[in-house]
Amino acid sequence: MYKSKQPKLVADWERLKKIFIRPEDDDCKEILVKYMEQILFGLHEFINRNVGVTEEISLKELTAGFQDTVINSDPEKKLAEVISDIISQIAPRAVNVASPYFVGHMTAAIPFFMVHLKAIVAALNQNVIKLETSKVLSVLEKQVLAKIHRLIYGFDETFYNKHVQNADTSLGSFTTGGTTANLTALWVARNRFFSPFDCINKSTININTDTGSIDRIHAGSHPDNIELTDNNIELAGNKLTGRFDGIESEGIAQALRAYSLDNAVLLVSKRGHFSLRKSGGILGIGNRNVIPVDVNAEHRMDAIKLLRTIRDIKKDGKTGVISVVGVAGATETGIVDPLDDIADICEEQRINFHVDAAWGGPVMLSEKYSHKLKGIERADSVTVDGHKQFFMPMTCGMVFFKSPLSMNHIAYHSNYVNRQGSVDLGIKTLEGSREANSLILDSALKIMGTRGYALMIDHGIETAKKFAQEIRNRDLFELITEPELNILTYRMVPPGFRQRLENADANEKKRLNAQIDQINISIQRKQREAGKSFVSRTRMAYGGMADQVDGTMADEVVVLRSVIMNPMTNISILNEVLDEQERILKSLGYVILN
Amino acid sequence: MYKSKQPKLVADWERLKKIFIRPEDDDCKEILVKYMEQILFGLHEFINRNVGVTEEISLKELTAGFQDTVINSDPEKKLAEVISDIISQIAPRAVNVASPYFVGHMTAAIPFFMVHLKAIVAALNQNVIKLETSKVLSVLEKQVLAKIHRLIYGFDETFYNKHVQNADTSLGSFTTGGTTANLTALWVARNRFFSPFDCINKSTININTDTGSIDRIHAGSHPDNIELTDNNIELAGNKLTGRFDGIESEGIAQALRAYSLDNAVLLVSKRGHFSLRKSGGILGIGNRNVIPVDVNAEHRMDAIKLLRTIRDIKKDGKTGVISVVGVAGATETGIVDPLDDIADICEEQRINFHVDAAWGGPVMLSEKYSHKLKGIERADSVTVDGHKQFFMPMTCGMVFFKSPLSMNHIAYHSNYVNRQGSVDLGIKTLEGSREANSLILDSALKIMGTRGYALMIDHGIETAKKFAQEIRNRDLFELITEPELNILTYRMVPPGFRQRLENADANEKKRLNAQIDQINISIQRKQREAGKSFVSRTRMAYGGMADQVDGTMADEVVVLRSVIMNPMTNISILNEVLDEQERILKSLGYVILN
Repeated sequence: MYKSKQPKLVADWERLKKIFIRPEDDDCKEILVKYMEQILFGLHEFINRNVGVTEEISLKELTAGFQDTVINSDPEKKLAEVISDIISQIAPRAVNVASPYFVGHMTAAIPFFMVHLKAIVAALNQNVIKLETSKVLSVLEKQVLAKIHRLIYGFDETFYNKHVQNADTSLGSFTTGGTTANLTALWVARNRFFSPFDCINKSTININTDTGSIDRIHAGSHPDNIELTDNNIELAGNKLTGRFDGIESEGIAQALRAYSLDNAVLLVSKRGHFSLRKSGGILGIGNRNVIPVDVNAEHRMDAIKLLRTIRDIKKDGKTGVISVVGVAGATETGIVDPLDDIADICEEQRINFHVDAAWGGPVMLSEKYSHKLKGIERADSVTVDGHKQFFMPMTCGMVFFKSPLSMNHIAYHSNYVNRQGSVDLGIKTLEGSREANSLILDSALKIMGTRGYALMIDHGIETAKKFAQEIRNRDLFELITEPELNILTYRMVPPGFRQRLENADANEKKRLNAQIDQINISIQRKQREAGKSFVSRTRMAYGGMADQVDGTMADEVVVLRSVIMNPMTNISILNEVLDEQERILKSLGYVILN
Repeated sequence: MYKSKQPKLVADWERLKKIFIRPEDDDCKEILVKYMEQILFGLHEFINRNVGVTEEISLKELTAGFQDTVINSDPEKKLAEVISDIISQIAPRAVNVASPYFVGHMTAAIPFFMVHLKAIVAALNQNVIKLETSKVLSVLEKQVLAKIHRLIYGFDETFYNKHVQNADTSLGSFTTGGTTANLTALWVARNRFFSPFDCINKSTININTDTGSIDRIHAGSHPDNIELTDNNIELAGNKLTGRFDGIESEGIAQALRAYSLDNAVLLVSKRGHFSLRKSGGILGIGNRNVIPVDVNAEHRMDAIKLLRTIRDIKKDGKTGVISVVGVAGATETGIVDPLDDIADICEEQRINFHVDAAWGGPVMLSEKYSHKLKGIERADSVTVDGHKQFFMPMTCGMVFFKSPLSMNHIAYHSNYVNRQGSVDLGIKTLEGSREANSLILDSALKIMGTRGYALMIDHGIETAKKFAQEIRNRDLFELITEPELNILTYRMVPPGFRQRLENADANEKKRLNAQIDQINISIQRKQREAGKSFVSRTRMAYGGMADQVDGTMADEVVVLRSVIMNPMTNISILNEVLDEQERILKSLGYVILN
């Protein structure tokens, strides 16, 4: 319609220059600010809307306007039009993740200043892959990483003075999310496990390793000590001979041969995030070799079963355990694995220990609840997300390594960037070019302080406790997983079903639960479609027998999942969510009982 | 110092609420806009500054202020202070990549509206991993991907109508950069090559494959046709027996056994980006199995040598070729490999063909020069970066697949997101949570049109041509690589050296070139330190014998590298850059000749 109102836009050099030239005069400035005003307040409407998650049925209508696949050769719109289109056409069809009634996923409201900080990062457009395109931002990234590393590992001042700006060592890296953070950690663990060795010239045995001893590197599959004889390395009865340049260079098949192994595995809690299985696939280990460890009734990794699994695996001496992965804040339940027990086992068995704290990591900022992550300081590596409980905008994750040398296992150099001996951050990262997200986290920490973050963390955990109590108090609801942090799962159980379940035999239970599953699926859908509030849905089992890592779904029931991270979400809002679900159940109930 | 001026900041619930509550009253609004004004114009100073790349020597001073590793428990600063600190402390120490004198790397000025668009994406904070947290942004992403796919492959309307919003197929994916785009493409190629098979129940042989025939999948290492006999698959004399669930599940060692192979390799131009070597390492293939193919005198992949290499590798029938990778816009030279010739070979030899067009991709938008990418439409997959010649802010890449089914090879599901049959984009991506970068590209294409982008592309290529001519005209300079696109390399040759080189024997040449190397290293450093302009530096060889992929540095000389992507960079600015280098050489010359 705007076409009728104004002359056709043309792409010419004058217009192009305008687009690049920075505001010199006040008219220019006014226009730029006007645009930003549009953005900051035009979206206001959207933010105060209901959550508006689409039912999949309406996807057809939604996609109707997004079919054209030809790019216009001439400009179609001016920025002002594009912005108002976004405000009038896109925003109303997006999901209002900022609503305090949106308690279904790990994406929520972010402090308004995050938008300002993101704009700064975009305006500077630094690329932290190398010093020549980032300079102080590379320096700042190392400092911010050291701050979070210190929060996790708490080494002494001397340690951090030595490493905070050390060009040869790395305490961690910013990534684009928890998935690439986990992938980076397991990539390092894989390479560390299959380190290079040289039996002829022993001086190079420990090249690229950060432990100074080959048995530590290899302990994963070989508890025995290592005999260093003249021309070979005796390893649990297997003679390592010749020279091996490392798995990164030679690949997995060669690595297994070099270490006389048939297979290598990762051990992960059944509640582990699917990115861990995916990492096993990407790294060439094979995702069926990402072995799920049973969880106990509280859905925590069962340490006894972990130890038993390790012993079984090692029995034949032909399978290497690259790493054990514990979870601190499971995606579905918010549960924290018994990190200290797992650390004990990994130390005793000399296995690499990674903790996926993508969700739970920032709980360390809370004086009141940081104890829940006890043992994380013993992990060889830790994943923490910036865009989750650090309340940063997408897309930001981090990975940290206890040893400042671990990341040498993934170092890459080239002639044009990341030259040997340079301080370029891109030498030891999975990603290449990266924006300077450290500036956002650094600024946020200055604006909030640990106490500001702690307020939000504590509020989430305590509101979840109240929510759990409310669920227990209501006859129509059943709490499935207690909220250790700020996530819980529950389901609705229609009148009568509870008692019938108690008296039912196994088969009858299955039949009844299948019915209850259908009811809960409908409730979640109908609530989502109503668009006022949103809880998510997954499958869990009583007694934590659910199996997520290997994808099977034995003995599971459908549960409703609530994630309470928005500080504006309170118990009265959550009561409204439950009330609505009761109303929906009533409306369904008739259908079912007829 | 501000501490003295104002009361200590405390983190309390009231303050926290303010941070989250969206502007209701006009005072609030005013403040928010004031902040944005600060950002848009405070950084103005910085943008108009000289490039200010740091010499590594000054890194010590730079890091001095970034040593503290303790996070304050109370808030240190208000947003206004943080912003002015960034403007006064950070920006002046950052690199002004937006300067038209910054012609050293692939990061440059971006149109001002990109900052606005990035702010919108941050304010919406959608997570396109799943529909429930992104809704219309998932739909928009599929449309934008289809637009670029159409630009590359140009299938007919029917094809795009069928796939643009098809929940079961994928034309590609947004990634966080070229590195993860290449990694994703090679991950798909690896899994496709080692597809699952089942000799007992042949109906499932082609599960997860996008070709409907096992010989195509496996043609990489086996030109012969495949015999399907009763209980096994005859494959180039090797009997495949039993069942194989695919490399993603079983891992590389098993995959090689299942296909009776000893090894699998990738073939990459010697000028290929180091992310390709890194991908080989991450994927478990081993980066020494990423085999560099010689380039010819123009630094293009030598098709004859490629074919010879493939034949040599296949001779024993024990090595599989997972993919050939061609480059469209090499990082160092901007050169485009002979894509049509490579495509011919890959078709004849039935090998997967990936093109890394991270840099060169957007040249397709230019009517005048798109022919330079002829043959790209025959690639099985293509990498294109958003944050390079689409002039988007960091961090945005894309990967495209000719077959809408290719990405099924990397599909992952879980109970809580990406459920079977859902339209969640996160099912087939390397990354997990992602911001809605498609909104930025879509808006930019509407504001610029293909013609607007073409203006910038053409300007870069034509300015590089003029620059090359200028270098040829100057006695003290030697052009090393002609600018096929908008990148060229050259070096300075001090008076006298040129003639001495002509008459020198091999050893003398080495000695002289070593001297010239040192001179060019000094010139690049001194110019960088002077801070007015910046060219980068790498190592290349006459006749394209340089070897980047395997990292060796035989027969190389140091060259100065210039990337002309900033539309504000013109020939007179480039002449200033050369003049400055001549002045520096003079100042050095004395030193050397004394």
